[in-house]
Amino acid sequence: MSEKAPWITYRPELKVLDCTIRDGGLINNHQFTDEVVRAVYDTCIQAGIDYMEIGYKNSPRLFPKSEFGAWRHCDEDDLNRVVGGHDAEKTGLKLAAMADAEKSDWKVQVVPRSESVLDLIRVAFYAHQVSEAVEMINHFHDLGYETMANLMAVSNITETEIDTVLESIAPTPAGTMVIVDSFGHLYREQIDRLYKKYAAAMEGTGKEIGIHAHNNMQLAFANTIEAIILGSNRVDATMLGLGRGAGNCPMEILLGFLRNPKFSLRPVIKLLQDHIIPLRDTVEWGPLIPFNITGQLNLHPQHAIKYRKSETKDDFVKFYDELKSEI
Amino acid sequence: MSEKAPWITYRPELKVLDCTIRDGGLINNHQFTDEVVRAVYDTCIQAGIDYMEIGYKNSPRLFPKSEFGAWRHCDEDDLNRVVGGHDAEKTGLKLAAMADAEKSDWKVQVVPRSESVLDLIRVAFYAHQVSEAVEMINHFHDLGYETMANLMAVSNITETEIDTVLESIAPTPAGTMVIVDSFGHLYREQIDRLYKKYAAAMEGTGKEIGIHAHNNMQLAFANTIEAIILGSNRVDATMLGLGRGAGNCPMEILLGFLRNPKFSLRPVIKLLQDHIIPLRDTVEWGPLIPFNITGQLNLHPQHAIKYRKSETKDDFVKFYDELKSEI
Repeated sequence: MSEKAPWITYRPELKVLDCTIRDGGLINNHQFTDEVVRAVYDTCIQAGIDYMEIGYKNSPRLFPKSEFGAWRHCDEDDLNRVVGGHDAEKTGLKLAAMADAEKSDWKVQVVPRSESVLDLIRVAFYAHQVSEAVEMINHFHDLGYETMANLMAVSNITETEIDTVLESIAPTPAGTMVIVDSFGHLYREQIDRLYKKYAAAMEGTGKEIGIHAHNNMQLAFANTIEAIILGSNRVDATMLGLGRGAGNCPMEILLGFLRNPKFSLRPVIKLLQDHIIPLRDTVEWGPLIPFNITGQLNLHPQHAIKYRKSETKDDFVKFYDELKSEI
Repeated sequence: MSEKAPWITYRPELKVLDCTIRDGGLINNHQFTDEVVRAVYDTCIQAGIDYMEIGYKNSPRLFPKSEFGAWRHCDEDDLNRVVGGHDAEKTGLKLAAMADAEKSDWKVQVVPRSESVLDLIRVAFYAHQVSEAVEMINHFHDLGYETMANLMAVSNITETEIDTVLESIAPTPAGTMVIVDSFGHLYREQIDRLYKKYAAAMEGTGKEIGIHAHNNMQLAFANTIEAIILGSNRVDATMLGLGRGAGNCPMEILLGFLRNPKFSLRPVIKLLQDHIIPLRDTVEWGPLIPFNITGQLNLHPQHAIKYRKSETKDDFVKFYDELKSEI
């Protein structure tokens, strides 16, 4: 990498993961049409994106199929219906699913990699669930999958807790440890410190550091760049930033920043126009004022999501006053 | 400033300038109602904001009063009608106006500071206009005003040109030299290099470095933080990011970041709700896809603004194809 103008060069080892359907499905209970999921899939291939996270491998007991769409569970039948015959080598795209600690029947929900179109399982967990997360990572690895470890809500725990999580994850076969700013609360200097902490803890293990940012303060893209500058080689983004609450790092902005000629922005713009912008008629996401406020206050976006379903949804002063008096 | 967690402390010398009416007026030819201008003014006082830039001191010959509202010219009569009797000392708020090189009748349009409610004149100029800018700064200084130098479109000129501008501005009485990313094109590492270049050139002159960012790639707030971290003590923002094209650094996010207890976020949220959000019915701004694209391509937002007035305004692929074929 040039020391002079690194923003016009690239690192070939940097890989982009699209989590539009997985994270976006938290807004609509994963009730996407097959057409939209397929369009995102086709776009990922055309745009040169490396991974597409197509949903969760979470429990149908906890998320009944009467209420939740196929991408909350990612049954092999559903995967095969929409992306059957997927060929990672030919397309350059690997498929991924996420399993949440305590929310996944992971011992029975995941078939061996050789029997699935999936290549990667990401394990999402809160700090206190790290022991289950380690078991999950080992299990998925034994089934043949690549794995990543996603410690959620990192802005809400102590540095000692983070250290303990990192110590537990370091010896696992997870290929990547991901910095996850679930509340969209982190500023640039905090990303720096976390990156350095994660990188130091993973040194010598061969693990990459990932970044998954939320956009409460319009910092998702900026924090993603920051992690990239520091050395992160696994970065998450979603189409038009689709995702719970304030949403995620927008793919269309990220791809415009990356200089690897294998990436192509045009198919992404076409997808936004044809499939993602129309979703705005039925679901809401983006860095709206209530999400600015929860981000600033380091609170779960759920406060704002609930408020946006209330009768006073546009009274932002009331929301601010209520939150400030409660915390 | 603490070396450990600077994001929870503050620098008392950091001052915030609101340019909602000045920059936002580029969308609507400065046709704001007095009520809105007054509401922004009242909010600036309540929120502890340091400066409010209320408009331009630009020429009524070039911007006829039949087409352009009062805040394109900031005649003293108009100022006095809306903020007459303004007391900077009592309110803690200083009023500012901007004069553009080649667009201002600056020799006749500006009365001495002692006869005006204004305290600060900002001089905006392109690199090739620096000689006129120096004359303007000297003139306004002689009239008793604080002055700032705003070199526009810095992403579009060479480093040598920037150096020459900075050499010309350094000996002037301007109190601040502002980094202005007119095209919303700059990434974090570019802000770093510009900040260091500006700071080095102004060393020993007592000048502050300012930052004025645009939001084409959702980086206005992030780039503003970046400049603050590096030492910038004069920062621009607008209410809800109101401003030409993609808009500016949103005040509501900036104030949530600053830890000086003199700042108050609540009046800003109230203003957004009562006066700024309703403007969306008649004017468009924000980091929409066409502005993402012009920002990435380092083009003037005017390309996107024009396109958004065309019949195919929502066909972003067409816009992308056209721009890519033209450049």
